Amino acid sequence: MRIDVVLTADAVTDEALDGATALVVDVLRASTSIIAALGNGAEGIVPVADADAARRRAAILGGRVVLAGERRGERIEGFDLGNSPLDFTPARVRGRTVIMTTSNGTRALLASRGAETVGIAALVNVSAAAAWAEAASRDVVVVCAGERGRVSLEDQVCAGLLVGRIAARAERARLTDAAAAAAGIAVPYGKDAARLARDSRWGRHLSRAGYAADLAACLSLDTSPLVPVYLRDVDKVVLRPR
Amino acid sequence: MRIDVVLTADAVTDEALDGATALVVDVLRASTSIIAALGNGAEGIVPVADADAARRRAAILGGRVVLAGERRGERIEGFDLGNSPLDFTPARVRGRTVIMTTSNGTRALLASRGAETVGIAALVNVSAAAAWAEAASRDVVVVCAGERGRVSLEDQVCAGLLVGRIAARAERARLTDAAAAAAGIAVPYGKDAARLARDSRWGRHLSRAGYAADLAACLSLDTSPLVPVYLRDVDKVVLRPR
Repeated sequence: MRIDVVLTADAVTDEALDGATALVVDVLRASTSIIAALGNGAEGIVPVADADAARRRAAILGGRVVLAGERRGERIEGFDLGNSPLDFTPARVRGRTVIMTTSNGTRALLASRGAETVGIAALVNVSAAAAWAEAASRDVVVVCAGERGRVSLEDQVCAGLLVGRIAARAERARLTDAAAAAAGIAVPYGKDAARLARDSRWGRHLSRAGYAADLAACLSLDTSPLVPVYLRDVDKVVLRPR
Repeated sequence: MRIDVVLTADAVTDEALDGATALVVDVLRASTSIIAALGNGAEGIVPVADADAARRRAAILGGRVVLAGERRGERIEGFDLGNSPLDFTPARVRGRTVIMTTSNGTRALLASRGAETVGIAALVNVSAAAAWAEAASRDVVVVCAGERGRVSLEDQVCAGLLVGRIAARAERARLTDAAAAAAGIAVPYGKDAARLARDSRWGRHLSRAGYAADLAACLSLDTSPLVPVYLRDVDKVVLRPR
């Protein structure tokens, strides 16, 4: 089993994804919010590229939809929710379809559609996501969202924890250099959320912008057993694969 | 002082380099070979994009030139030298201009020309290169060559060691996420050349291809006090800045 890591949404290629299981990681905050929404009873998440696409999709789907998303970390004007995992409460999302667009996370998800299977991973479900990916017995590509084409420390740390957990379970794991490097980063940061919050640029931004509670929620390890899966045919992220 | 790391030659942008000191890193093996060549008395290194450009430049320069370079790790047909640092002996290079093209290292160097100053770093001169870059009191961008658009573990580890050493010297250092991540990787790998040789894809390739002695030379820490500098005006890497 080959384990690879791609550090930004821009760097994903269909060649890298061919026949593989992709794990899409946007720790702060899209992956974590998707896991929270589905854990709180959302029927599914529809990832779209931008606010206009979200509104168009809402018009088509009609009924019980929730518009969620951010640009520069703040809720998009006119949307029901931003990108805070704490906002996706049962009262807000149960039984509803969430149409979601974020700066990097939904882009990474859309860029990963060429993989054989696509799961959503974050620090909150890192062990569950690793077990799910390993059980599929395919090559694994961890796709980090990053930040506008740049590396995000928290995504790379999460990727490294995934690599370590998958490699520990797999019978034979071959790590690419990017995977070995991510695993290396997970050594000093994997168990030190405070240091990760301090050293991550976006972590510092969220903290300053009044989202310290989000930061604490997103940087917690293994608080969820759920692995959301993207179903290409219906263009939706749900809790159960077909 | 802002410290940034770019993980592949393709990812370098002029915006990132603007006003900064660039440190170009291709541990296996171009950076190490350049340091070896200049240490052994070469007059300068002219980086060019490909074999044809090397031959044209040799025809223009005439006289005491040496053609050096590789593709897929092997010496280019008709060239005097490949890319092994052990080949750049005093007998081969003293007083001569080396015209050099490699798959990733010279590309990274050419991509970094937009920086205010450009130095060459590798594991063999990591402390000297860090001290030189810090002394310039500009922002620093470590440009890893990588491997055809992919991350090279050994380059990222070298970048992390540079980041750590520069940050330790600088009065106030701000690390980008990529810089913090590289520094994180340097923790498990920085002092364990055997593990680095094992986990690096290109390291394994060189070892299998009969270049184990190169690998040992390239993965040694701080065996050289030299910092080659690229002079844009004369398009040449030399030992002394103007």
